[in-house]
Amino acid sequence: MEVNNRYITITKHIQGSAKESDFELKVAPLGLSVEPGSNDIIVKNLCVSIDPYQLNRMKSYSSSQKTVQAADGISPGQPIDALGVAKVLVSDNPEFVKDDLVVGFVHWGEYSVVKGGGMLRKVDPKTELPLSYHAGILGLSGLTAYAGLFEICKPKKGDKVFVSAACGSVGNLVGQYAKLSGCYVVGCAGSRDKVALLKEKLGFDDAFNYKEETDLNSALTRYFPDGIDIYFDNVGADMLEAAVANLNPFGRVAACGTIAEYSETAKRAAPNMIDVIYKRIKIQGFLAMDHKSLHSDFLSTTTEYIQNGKIKVQEDISIGVESIPLAFIGLFRGDNVGKKIVKIADE
Amino acid sequence: MEVNNRYITITKHIQGSAKESDFELKVAPLGLSVEPGSNDIIVKNLCVSIDPYQLNRMKSYSSSQKTVQAADGISPGQPIDALGVAKVLVSDNPEFVKDDLVVGFVHWGEYSVVKGGGMLRKVDPKTELPLSYHAGILGLSGLTAYAGLFEICKPKKGDKVFVSAACGSVGNLVGQYAKLSGCYVVGCAGSRDKVALLKEKLGFDDAFNYKEETDLNSALTRYFPDGIDIYFDNVGADMLEAAVANLNPFGRVAACGTIAEYSETAKRAAPNMIDVIYKRIKIQGFLAMDHKSLHSDFLSTTTEYIQNGKIKVQEDISIGVESIPLAFIGLFRGDNVGKKIVKIADE
Repeated sequence: MEVNNRYITITKHIQGSAKESDFELKVAPLGLSVEPGSNDIIVKNLCVSIDPYQLNRMKSYSSSQKTVQAADGISPGQPIDALGVAKVLVSDNPEFVKDDLVVGFVHWGEYSVVKGGGMLRKVDPKTELPLSYHAGILGLSGLTAYAGLFEICKPKKGDKVFVSAACGSVGNLVGQYAKLSGCYVVGCAGSRDKVALLKEKLGFDDAFNYKEETDLNSALTRYFPDGIDIYFDNVGADMLEAAVANLNPFGRVAACGTIAEYSETAKRAAPNMIDVIYKRIKIQGFLAMDHKSLHSDFLSTTTEYIQNGKIKVQEDISIGVESIPLAFIGLFRGDNVGKKIVKIADE
Repeated sequence: MEVNNRYITITKHIQGSAKESDFELKVAPLGLSVEPGSNDIIVKNLCVSIDPYQLNRMKSYSSSQKTVQAADGISPGQPIDALGVAKVLVSDNPEFVKDDLVVGFVHWGEYSVVKGGGMLRKVDPKTELPLSYHAGILGLSGLTAYAGLFEICKPKKGDKVFVSAACGSVGNLVGQYAKLSGCYVVGCAGSRDKVALLKEKLGFDDAFNYKEETDLNSALTRYFPDGIDIYFDNVGADMLEAAVANLNPFGRVAACGTIAEYSETAKRAAPNMIDVIYKRIKIQGFLAMDHKSLHSDFLSTTTEYIQNGKIKVQEDISIGVESIPLAFIGLFRGDNVGKKIVKIADE
């Protein structure tokens, strides 16, 4: 048996901002059979995660940046792997059978062959949560927020926490976790609607629209008259500079993303190093994948918070594999409100 | 009894680079008596430490940088406190008597009244080391190197360590401690003589003159073909950027000084935050004063290293209180080779 697999690729390496013409919807026949002994699995993808970091994988790198590329660059014409939820169609792996619902790295496409099947995990049917949650809040976005806040920033009750891109997939959760830890939390976002959402639905103590501020430094001084203890950075650039200027002694910065710098490579944060030294500031980059030891804690804690309503889930869902390029490009324009997911098929 | 006390002050707050005209030698009579019950001590200063960080205390700050100023700003016309070695002339403090040799915060001047006497410590006569060592390698410069390397960077055997301003008071020690920890150590400095000193006397594996390099990034790639694990930053600016570009995953930066940024406030390091994130880099500011718990370890270890010749002491000594302004200004031109000390009087 064979299906036509529609999937998204890049047409060339991307420099600067991503445009629609950088992407292509390819169609290729896919035989629904696996090599005995391969452990391979073929899945039908139900929903996939859309994340800004993918842009970094789509660039071409000079040798001096080989570490970043080594993370795993995306080649033009090839399927693009991403976290998703899928249904097993064919399995040579004894741990999975047809119709199992799984979460793991699949592709921005309708079907995926998962080699060896090793990285997939069965969806726990007992949680009775929407399947998309497993690709978002209970996936890498959630683990990123959890690890970055708790491991890198170590929040204490009463700490003042600032989160940028606070309506994004990671930021909204960081703020909610920080509130549950007894912190004072202010977020920034790029529209009035998002600001309202942060304050009214997601429980932030305060929020502001950075596009309405002419001076980020004094805006932060206004929102944090007693200074910032923790800055969870999703944007880099001038917001990072302003946050460092407003950090308290022993302030911590979790460097999670730098979306402002992903597209415009020339625009870089130049934090005042005199502040960094005298205030003993720690700026620490991190990746969720280094914190897998937290995964089961993260999953049980977060699932419970969702089930008892202590954490609100904010998703932004587009429909159909063909919507992926615009969904992705929209991340950099701030189109999404919450975790961006593309739903590819019904269960 | 009364003496004429000659001491250095600033004539106004300093913006940008320090010039000779920013300083003044003042003369004021000082009565050699202390109030009974005050615990005050009057000392004759023998030598004082000359350190770049004093420039930050001489600036005037906007309210947004109040944390730095709060460290303790220097007011025009007032004596400037600095670490030094001195001899007790008069003491109301029962712990000290006339002729005791002490180390602690005195002033850039011939005499000091040390209020309460609390921060002074007697020089251990058993060490039989030159007195200047207590203001330099066994003083804050040494503790800064020790705390920054061991507490912030946590060197492991085989780590590749890069030190900037490697002939400076802190840098030369960082390199020597790192060598004693089994690391591969490269330093940079601003002259061929300093480079020779690093390699031939101070035991660095390699060293280079940054003024002869047109591209710091590729220079570091040349000196560290396998990348940098630890960067001990004394200079900030483009050297910090280049180091971050060459750091290995999980690289650590001890932000100790940013001498390139002390004078020219516009010139700031803009490290690539994508590197910081993907390589999980930690950039951490620190001050020696937060690591007082290490002090006795530091002192005994370093004294032993000096005594058995495992650490070479590199000092640069000027004579006379009137030489202080030029000694200080010279720090920012790279005039000093090793720890800058001004000897004010013989014992």
